[in-house]
Amino acid sequence: MKAVRIHKYGELPVVEEVPEPTIQGPFDVLVKVGGAGVCRTDLHIIEGQWAAAMAPQLPYTLGHENAGWVQEVGSSVTNVAVGDTVILHPTPTCGLCRACRAGQDMHCTNSSFPGLSGDGGMAEYLLTSARACVRLDPTTEPQDVAALADAGITAYHAVRKAIPLLHPGTTCVVIGAGGLGHIGIQCLAALTATTIIVVDRNPDALKLAEQLGAHHTVVAGGAQVDKVLELTGGGADVVLDFVAEQGAENDGFRMTGSGGSYFVIGYGGTLQVPTLDIISTERNIIGNIVGTYNELVELMVLAQAGKVTLHTITYPLDAAVDALKDLEAGQVRGRAILVP
Amino acid sequence: MKAVRIHKYGELPVVEEVPEPTIQGPFDVLVKVGGAGVCRTDLHIIEGQWAAAMAPQLPYTLGHENAGWVQEVGSSVTNVAVGDTVILHPTPTCGLCRACRAGQDMHCTNSSFPGLSGDGGMAEYLLTSARACVRLDPTTEPQDVAALADAGITAYHAVRKAIPLLHPGTTCVVIGAGGLGHIGIQCLAALTATTIIVVDRNPDALKLAEQLGAHHTVVAGGAQVDKVLELTGGGADVVLDFVAEQGAENDGFRMTGSGGSYFVIGYGGTLQVPTLDIISTERNIIGNIVGTYNELVELMVLAQAGKVTLHTITYPLDAAVDALKDLEAGQVRGRAILVP
Amino acid sequence: MKAVRIHKYGELPVVEEVPEPTIQGPFDVLVKVGGAGVCRTDLHIIEGQWAAAMAPQLPYTLGHENAGWVQEVGSSVTNVAVGDTVILHPTPTCGLCRACRAGQDMHCTNSSFPGLSGDGGMAEYLLTSARACVRLDPTTEPQDVAALADAGITAYHAVRKAIPLLHPGTTCVVIGAGGLGHIGIQCLAALTATTIIVVDRNPDALKLAEQLGAHHTVVAGGAQVDKVLELTGGGADVVLDFVAEQGAENDGFRMTGSGGSYFVIGYGGTLQVPTLDIISTERNIIGNIVGTYNELVELMVLAQAGKVTLHTITYPLDAAVDALKDLEAGQVRGRAILVP
Amino acid sequence: MKAVRIHKYGELPVVEEVPEPTIQGPFDVLVKVGGAGVCRTDLHIIEGQWAAAMAPQLPYTLGHENAGWVQEVGSSVTNVAVGDTVILHPTPTCGLCRACRAGQDMHCTNSSFPGLSGDGGMAEYLLTSARACVRLDPTTEPQDVAALADAGITAYHAVRKAIPLLHPGTTCVVIGAGGLGHIGIQCLAALTATTIIVVDRNPDALKLAEQLGAHHTVVAGGAQVDKVLELTGGGADVVLDFVAEQGAENDGFRMTGSGGSYFVIGYGGTLQVPTLDIISTERNIIGNIVGTYNELVELMVLAQAGKVTLHTITYPLDAAVDALKDLEAGQVRGRAILVP
Repeated sequence: MKAVRIHKYGELPVVEEVPEPTIQGPFDVLVKVGGAGVCRTDLHIIEGQWAAAMAPQLPYTLGHENAGWVQEVGSSVTNVAVGDTVILHPTPTCGLCRACRAGQDMHCTNSSFPGLSGDGGMAEYLLTSARACVRLDPTTEPQDVAALADAGITAYHAVRKAIPLLHPGTTCVVIGAGGLGHIGIQCLAALTATTIIVVDRNPDALKLAEQLGAHHTVVAGGAQVDKVLELTGGGADVVLDFVAEQGAENDGFRMTGSGGSYFVIGYGGTLQVPTLDIISTERNIIGNIVGTYNELVELMVLAQAGKVTLHTITYPLDAAVDALKDLEAGQVRGRAILVP
Repeated sequence: MKAVRIHKYGELPVVEEVPEPTIQGPFDVLVKVGGAGVCRTDLHIIEGQWAAAMAPQLPYTLGHENAGWVQEVGSSVTNVAVGDTVILHPTPTCGLCRACRAGQDMHCTNSSFPGLSGDGGMAEYLLTSARACVRLDPTTEPQDVAALADAGITAYHAVRKAIPLLHPGTTCVVIGAGGLGHIGIQCLAALTATTIIVVDRNPDALKLAEQLGAHHTVVAGGAQVDKVLELTGGGADVVLDFVAEQGAENDGFRMTGSGGSYFVIGYGGTLQVPTLDIISTERNIIGNIVGTYNELVELMVLAQAGKVTLHTITYPLDAAVDALKDLEAGQVRGRAILVP
Repeated sequence: MKAVRIHKYGELPVVEEVPEPTIQGPFDVLVKVGGAGVCRTDLHIIEGQWAAAMAPQLPYTLGHENAGWVQEVGSSVTNVAVGDTVILHPTPTCGLCRACRAGQDMHCTNSSFPGLSGDGGMAEYLLTSARACVRLDPTTEPQDVAALADAGITAYHAVRKAIPLLHPGTTCVVIGAGGLGHIGIQCLAALTATTIIVVDRNPDALKLAEQLGAHHTVVAGGAQVDKVLELTGGGADVVLDFVAEQGAENDGFRMTGSGGSYFVIGYGGTLQVPTLDIISTERNIIGNIVGTYNELVELMVLAQAGKVTLHTITYPLDAAVDALKDLEAGQVRGRAILVP
Repeated sequence: MKAVRIHKYGELPVVEEVPEPTIQGPFDVLVKVGGAGVCRTDLHIIEGQWAAAMAPQLPYTLGHENAGWVQEVGSSVTNVAVGDTVILHPTPTCGLCRACRAGQDMHCTNSSFPGLSGDGGMAEYLLTSARACVRLDPTTEPQDVAALADAGITAYHAVRKAIPLLHPGTTCVVIGAGGLGHIGIQCLAALTATTIIVVDRNPDALKLAEQLGAHHTVVAGGAQVDKVLELTGGGADVVLDFVAEQGAENDGFRMTGSGGSYFVIGYGGTLQVPTLDIISTERNIIGNIVGTYNELVELMVLAQAGKVTLHTITYPLDAAVDALKDLEAGQVRGRAILVP
């Protein structure tokens, strides 16, 4: 089968032929990929940022955001059957550690992360486990929803954690209205009555944000912190930072009001904050990574009710490198999806 | 009356005669001071660290940690009467803003902070408001409990926020077993069954920590992060940092495990954290400042049940400067209390 | 001034002349009434159901749901000024007890309840306290929002408590689409993405419910429990019972699914449940009464954003008895409002 | 092997020979039973109370509270190995339904309940699943901890849910100081600083309660409600009812204060409460059943730290009927344990 493989950090991946994966254990599930999202994290992987943390053996296949159809199942799989349309939680988990037993899939001590720790889903087939499969309405087109598997779940997870802080009368700043941010805005609009303020340097992204539910938009270009402080009367209750690099991370903390919470979702930068600033206003900095299996299920409910709509551009699998280049160049509105 | 007054930042305060404060409004309460705690924040005030944030008019009287007896009350005060023994919440609040109406005294938009924003309680009398007064059992000696008014409430507030994270089987690191930390350890022991690990550079402080409930102690002197990672199997569920300066702040974050929370309580340093480290392990950084009125009441219940005992050294009010010097020199175990 | 006064339980109240109330204390506020809601509780008061609990001295003025304009203020009032448009929290509170200091206005140990414990607002003027006043946009018409002061806050309070239970994919049953229920439905639609199922015996009320956001409606007339169990696949995650009398209370519990919560908001009936049924499915029964001051503020934000719209019928103050009769006869859609 | 089998509801079970169970699936675990607790629920099973809900095929083996040693494991079991000492969560769960994915083992839609729905552990061997096994320190004696598998987890689960309500200064009533209650008291003492009031009709049970941490005890015998109202100043913050039959259920609700919560843990009676009483004081009635896998792990931490000690009487497996009779006659202090 065809797969998008990284051979060396710092070099673009290559689309090449590899053998199809095969079922090994009783809980394995082989999925025919219908859509594979292209993520900023793929760029970071290529740069080598995840090499130390994930330590995959090169070469390997990229792709951690997938939906498709079940092709084959292991002997003990009961929750999906051959032919089912599925979206895949990005981290197949063990189901036995304390985190799994608490529903905190992200903190499973024995999980894998296909596309980061080993072969992922920018390919015709992906091997995953029963625990990663969310069964969908059979009419769902995998390429339409694939981006919910990582961009979506990550944005939803952060918004869901913020809901208790976002009663009517509060303000929530969204930094970055791209692949994740444009989903986050829709989740906020569907699940809260907070005032949504979106910050992005791209005016087109801000236009999309307004259509999706933003009440105010701010062009990032120097005065964004002051503008937000003015709009919020001194700082937002919650800041969701989908960028968290190139200075956004320190802006984001400064946009956060007294008693408020700054949610880090993007990454790449370094936060620098005097502890006096943290305590004198009792602000919080909240880490966020992916989301739980149940959160992915909930997000699919929102999507199937039409409350979250993805803005995507599809590329054939062969054009994976073009998609990566377009993303890097800031030319993707919403999310790029590879279709094998 | 005598009062400990600061005339110029960078210079030690002076004990001098000033007029007694007088009741002005219907909710004012005049308190005869029985004990006034000496706090690291007083040193920071003298250095000028709080000048910008609080903007008090110099000279003014220090002291934000007080207990005593009600001397006189305004016309509408109903919750305390002349002669009552009281401990004082450090920030008299308005009672009308959203934060006050939610019980979040720390975030009152109209509060004062006697001893920081204006005349405090290192004096014979202190003017405060009915909303700041917690009535105590009449047999209580104010000098025995004064340190609970700020050191105590601050430590208790942080511990109380951490309780939901500290089920049996978790680990909690306490950085700094001084004025606040030694109270925090007792609160942890009274309210959780977590494993308590205390880090301090002073072996005597660690000995006290063990008597108060610490399960493990670690001398800070270079290898403290590795030692904690070893004791916790890769990081604690909660780190309570009562120091948060001179490198403790970055140590504290590194001591925090996956999915864990680093509580900033002390201050003075600057936290520097790559956003990748925040998201990849989904860690939180939690600001903490003082506590609510109800938390002070709860802490007094613990104190009166003998579950929190203060380690104090008393000084006469005239010796205030000695107390400040001893604190700076690291020669105060527990808390120094001025007795007018 | 004119006032609607109850002289004897079991007899209809009388509209008669009484002296205007006057400012007594520094925090008193005299409000010129712009609208006074007519509530099922007024019928219950007339029947004598509240006589023992509230022990008002007869005769007294009914009315616990008011908005209007500030006419005069006590000497220490700072949060409102003469001429302000205000809506009134139904229970002026002390601000000093533990409940008040935690923001739990409903549990104030020293509150009054004008209209239940003493003179209320079915009159030209109402005496209340600064702590009860929520300042509104000056263009607001009091008669348009008065019903939010009690029906609204009560419905909102229950919905707000239920939000953490109502993630996407859940179901919420609303029993009763009348004065409170029609507000509850709108709050659910504004603040959650749950599937809303409304049960009422009146087809017109159900039609209104659909317009306000109900996904399914069920006519109460014998088969309502089975119908709900079928729609929810065995029971709802949350049941909000705005009736809780005449059998609705036992229906409501039976409509609640495993691990679910039955919210009692209406009253009058008697719940009868085997403890085995409570534990075998781990269901909860949640009491609800009025709401907090901050919740009223939040609800006004929703109202001013157009997310909660009241369906009201106005009557002149002189026609108070007609309004009560119409309510009893089930002829009021939404809420009846007296306009002095 | 020998097993305690029920042949007909209303008749005592019989100790008889049956074939040993055998491993069937990849996740099965066969446990050599070291201790099997005898529970009030066994009496209720014999009476037929659970026949409809659980529908087991008669005859079957009783016993839902077990610890022992792993005898054999299925091909895919990774979390325990032959020879391990284990305590067993009472309901082996599927690991795939929403409840399991949220850590809510009690609400698994595909769980079994050995001893209620099919063969249990009053036998020499018990067949369970990998998901039910909690590995223990190898020095643990199964008969010493078996009662934690059901009595313990149930008491702990209720206490853990109550912790956020039990800050210092609150009161908690425990009704019933028997098998579950005597564990609940210890959990309260280990994890909160609440004032513990224990109600039981047996003076010996109350004496034990005092040794385990009760601050006040009340003999149930007519005046218990008034006595508790007096001790609590009008009602407790939390009532944990481990009896919930023979009138305790209505007493328990009446002992609950304004804004408080009545936890139903025992069962057998019928709660009868006017909805007016639920709403006027905003009280809650909270269902409780067993607990989560992680809660059992946490409880074992408390037990191994010596914070929860079981009071048990052992009987040989052959004497199972004697143990059941003693329990029924109220002659068991703490918990009866069968040792095969």
